[in-house]
Amino acid sequence: MKYSDVFLKQTQIDENVGNFCHRLAQDLFPICRSLTGPGVRETLAYLGQYLPGLTVHEVPSGTQAFDWTVPDEWIIRGGYITDESGQRIVDFKVHNLHVVGYSEPVDQWLDLEELDKHLYSLPDQPDAIPYITSYYSRRWGFCLTHKQRQTMKPGRYRVVIDSELKPGVLNYAELILPGQSEQEVLLSTYICHPSMANNELSGPVVTTALARWLISLENRRYTYRIVFIPETIGSILYLSRNMEHMKRHVVAGFNITCIGDDRTYSYLPSRAGNTVADRAALHVLQHIFPDFKRYTWLDRGSDERQYCAPGVDLPIATIMRSKYGEYPEYHTSLDDLTLVTPSGLEGGFTALQQAIEVIENNLRLNITVFCEPQLGKRGLYPTLSTKESGDQVRTMMNLISYCDGKTLLEIAEIVGEPVSKLLEILKPLIKNGLIQVTQD
Amino acid sequence: MKYSDVFLKQTQIDENVGNFCHRLAQDLFPICRSLTGPGVRETLAYLGQYLPGLTVHEVPSGTQAFDWTVPDEWIIRGGYITDESGQRIVDFKVHNLHVVGYSEPVDQWLDLEELDKHLYSLPDQPDAIPYITSYYSRRWGFCLTHKQRQTMKPGRYRVVIDSELKPGVLNYAELILPGQSEQEVLLSTYICHPSMANNELSGPVVTTALARWLISLENRRYTYRIVFIPETIGSILYLSRNMEHMKRHVVAGFNITCIGDDRTYSYLPSRAGNTVADRAALHVLQHIFPDFKRYTWLDRGSDERQYCAPGVDLPIATIMRSKYGEYPEYHTSLDDLTLVTPSGLEGGFTALQQAIEVIENNLRLNITVFCEPQLGKRGLYPTLSTKESGDQVRTMMNLISYCDGKTLLEIAEIVGEPVSKLLEILKPLIKNGLIQVTQD
Amino acid sequence: MKYSDVFLKQTQIDENVGNFCHRLAQDLFPICRSLTGPGVRETLAYLGQYLPGLTVHEVPSGTQAFDWTVPDEWIIRGGYITDESGQRIVDFKVHNLHVVGYSEPVDQWLDLEELDKHLYSLPDQPDAIPYITSYYSRRWGFCLTHKQRQTMKPGRYRVVIDSELKPGVLNYAELILPGQSEQEVLLSTYICHPSMANNELSGPVVTTALARWLISLENRRYTYRIVFIPETIGSILYLSRNMEHMKRHVVAGFNITCIGDDRTYSYLPSRAGNTVADRAALHVLQHIFPDFKRYTWLDRGSDERQYCAPGVDLPIATIMRSKYGEYPEYHTSLDDLTLVTPSGLEGGFTALQQAIEVIENNLRLNITVFCEPQLGKRGLYPTLSTKESGDQVRTMMNLISYCDGKTLLEIAEIVGEPVSKLLEILKPLIKNGLIQVTQD
Repeated sequence: MKYSDVFLKQTQIDENVGNFCHRLAQDLFPICRSLTGPGVRETLAYLGQYLPGLTVHEVPSGTQAFDWTVPDEWIIRGGYITDESGQRIVDFKVHNLHVVGYSEPVDQWLDLEELDKHLYSLPDQPDAIPYITSYYSRRWGFCLTHKQRQTMKPGRYRVVIDSELKPGVLNYAELILPGQSEQEVLLSTYICHPSMANNELSGPVVTTALARWLISLENRRYTYRIVFIPETIGSILYLSRNMEHMKRHVVAGFNITCIGDDRTYSYLPSRAGNTVADRAALHVLQHIFPDFKRYTWLDRGSDERQYCAPGVDLPIATIMRSKYGEYPEYHTSLDDLTLVTPSGLEGGFTALQQAIEVIENNLRLNITVFCEPQLGKRGLYPTLSTKESGDQVRTMMNLISYCDGKTLLEIAEIVGEPVSKLLEILKPLIKNGLIQVTQD
Repeated sequence: MKYSDVFLKQTQIDENVGNFCHRLAQDLFPICRSLTGPGVRETLAYLGQYLPGLTVHEVPSGTQAFDWTVPDEWIIRGGYITDESGQRIVDFKVHNLHVVGYSEPVDQWLDLEELDKHLYSLPDQPDAIPYITSYYSRRWGFCLTHKQRQTMKPGRYRVVIDSELKPGVLNYAELILPGQSEQEVLLSTYICHPSMANNELSGPVVTTALARWLISLENRRYTYRIVFIPETIGSILYLSRNMEHMKRHVVAGFNITCIGDDRTYSYLPSRAGNTVADRAALHVLQHIFPDFKRYTWLDRGSDERQYCAPGVDLPIATIMRSKYGEYPEYHTSLDDLTLVTPSGLEGGFTALQQAIEVIENNLRLNITVFCEPQLGKRGLYPTLSTKESGDQVRTMMNLISYCDGKTLLEIAEIVGEPVSKLLEILKPLIKNGLIQVTQD
Repeated sequence: MKYSDVFLKQTQIDENVGNFCHRLAQDLFPICRSLTGPGVRETLAYLGQYLPGLTVHEVPSGTQAFDWTVPDEWIIRGGYITDESGQRIVDFKVHNLHVVGYSEPVDQWLDLEELDKHLYSLPDQPDAIPYITSYYSRRWGFCLTHKQRQTMKPGRYRVVIDSELKPGVLNYAELILPGQSEQEVLLSTYICHPSMANNELSGPVVTTALARWLISLENRRYTYRIVFIPETIGSILYLSRNMEHMKRHVVAGFNITCIGDDRTYSYLPSRAGNTVADRAALHVLQHIFPDFKRYTWLDRGSDERQYCAPGVDLPIATIMRSKYGEYPEYHTSLDDLTLVTPSGLEGGFTALQQAIEVIENNLRLNITVFCEPQLGKRGLYPTLSTKESGDQVRTMMNLISYCDGKTLLEIAEIVGEPVSKLLEILKPLIKNGLIQVTQD
């Protein structure tokens, strides 16, 4: 292949990526998303403005997807509890977490004692509204802060939920960005949670920013398959339609979730644990934030459960900031846009971007001469000899000494340097014909 | 295969297994066993009462067994030392360790000085009679406590050993319990030590209890080959007659010894170190008694030396309580039935029983649907949601996520749960057709 | 093969090897060696007196060797700096490190300020003359102690270097010692450094002693290829002429350098890291000096860079005393024959000798009987039973238990005993026909 074909070239993106992501998250935060329904469509339409080519699909309720069935569509217009005086104690308009997801419609008066069975709050987090859903068994309920609940006196209450549960559609969106190769990198994120920020708005907005960065690149090596789906049923459905193609083509991928707070970085492996996606994730995190938290497959909890299931076995790893289930605000109203910050989003974006760059640049390298090359005659030694240039030469010689058909990532793992640094050293060596590149 | 064929079913055994083992040990303790002779036959006849189908074999002295020759038979009827006054200082009737094993006959008067060369005692354990044998070079001798020895005054002593060493037979017994498969599990124990309890009566009695438990089982997957032999020459002889068959059929096995005291558990690997027997032993001990002592092949000392020898290479591991050579009473009269207790024997029995169950249930598992199954519609979620049921669901999902052709033991090792617990979770999944079982 | 063919037999060498090496180093120390020139020829001629069959080769300047070209020959006759009074401040006659290696000729007067650009000293080691070369770009210069430099007052100085740089030859020497096999062990050392003792005179003199020991041996299994070359250009040149043959024949080898001081032992791996040479080096050092320093391929710096380069991939490891670059006297005039001692050289010699013995004796072993052999009837048990003889029997049984086609080194690694000890136990077992030997 030609030298110019090998490396990514990037055009400038104007807005700071953290601000871009946070701006989108602010716009999307109030929308009440669920597995299905208008909130999902509104969200996908909004993201489509930023992603030319994003295609929204719809799948009828009742469609079979492996062991699962697409559920009825849920439409929620409002919901509230009033006391005898007519005062609204809890109102969906105030926070869309107040109504249990997939609640069936209700309009009735009850005693507090009866109502209590339909209320959900968190005694240990008295200011948080919990996030509760009941997708696959019919019920209704309200979530509220424990403080609110404690103010409710015995008496009669009216509960109203203005919802519909009926055959409709499940929506998801996909964007395919063709590359030089038909081999694919999968980016998957989910759009089924209402107003929460780390889990999950951070996922769709960072994925949107990554997609825009990928669109801006010349010479993409891989084709990118980017999907916005409801969690679990969405990935199962998507696999039921695309698995054979994906098993043949997907060489790496990431499930993108919980990627927006500022506290830490996390890694959760694929089921196989040693795919290129895993190794790229580990490589990047070790150099960005060596204290990142390392989880195991036994800690899984998102769409990797489907992508890596036995017989599916796609090479999908996960890079996160604070992992779902592991931070106090998880699945409550406290998971909001003060927790998820521009710098948190930018850090998450950068880790994923660098992991993708590692995969894109994971070229197989061979030196073209026997023994060490004479670098002096080629002007490949730094002209000024300083401690820094000495380290540079050392790293160059280490890199060259492993160009025996290993990939750049393998070499980076052995010599302990970031792929990005080795890449800068590698480019002139390729230009000079000292290193030959093959792609798998 | 049919679901009902897969799992062991057990009929009730009435007596507590620890008491059963201790009762047998009490009956057998006084018998003077050796490599050969009436004591061995008496022991095997006694065990035969509990083991229908146990077959006793006899092999003539002089028979060649690989590099070895079956020795002459030893018959011991009595032996004593008297002083000039005719008082018996040491008498075989008091303890059969008093006569050195395989002593030739003697009847003579000697000075203490001459006699002393034929006496064995332990200065560091002055109350213990040591256990000494001389199988392959002719001599005679007496073992006594160091305290006894120190009371002996200079003077004349008469020594009498009423023994015979002459061509006869070597005895061993075997019991074959057929299973669904011609593949075999070997249980081997030895019956050549006189009155000592951990090493070795614990071995034959626990093996007898295991055999009775195996007889009581329906649906045994494997055929069981259970042998009671004299140590070393017995296993070499047995292999010289059965090795080719055993190399083709034996998939796992245990040498059963030192399995009756209460102090600890021990593991000694096969020479290969990673056979199913080794992994089953480690798995069970890690869950029963995580502080078990882990030895290496370099610490070996019993019949695994033959079963695992180069070119034999059977997959035989060893689970013990206190290992031979590693406890102070070893090979002395202090290794008696106060050291070996019902609870010690029961613990040893249970560890071996569980290891056998792990091997029996080491099925290869495959999930029959792509992606995670929908468990709700199958009623496979616990109806009451508690912390415990949450753990149960988590474990079930972990198990399912590895059903890609791995065996149950492999999965147990990864998820860190006992096979027995996974088995209970597995059964309804198999019944529902979600998991398919294959046997190797 | 016959038993008598298997093991090395050594004839006596009279002089203590440490003294021998130190004597040679003293003779060779004053000679001004470089990549090329009369000093190299003088050195090789001197060593040839001790090494019958040593062949000196010459290669014309300008000869191509893979990516490199043999440089012009450098002849240095003298060099000095005088002050205005004619006093010699720095003189090549006093120490040949005073003139920068490969300096072009010069004879001129300059101001101190101008001269200063051509002076090299070490502020942190004010008593040391540094070792500086400029092989591949033309310049001239003087090295001196920092103390000397600080005494130089502003004024005029005359600098004279009486050198020549012109097409000539590069010299190297080789000695081939045929063995029973055409497979080869490579010993490579370099002869391009002027008056420094650990790096490098220790290398050529210890290699000379090893060659003499190898000559003295009967029944050498391997052919030995022993080369004395200038570093880097020499090994590249040598490979450019012999690589195909060496890739087919060399089974192990050592680059011999920095092998003469008394402070520590060091190991630097081949690029592959697990060749027989590496394992022999590690085995010997673990038993000689368990605190040896263990370097990685990333710490390399000598001819292993060429021998182990991608596509060359010879199995060459390095055993050193204090490694180049890691001791304060390195590449200065302080690296002299007080630092390198007879005992330091002897220790280095012994480590390499033992590593070669491990390679020579790395026989593949098979026991010829099934199960444990009956050692008593063969008289292979020690006659006196002591704690030491018990250990000996234990080690013998451990050795026997692994004779299933493993090599002696593999067994030594498992049982944790030195190959030399196992070899003594092995010899009678081979003689008795219990162990059969095959060579790879």
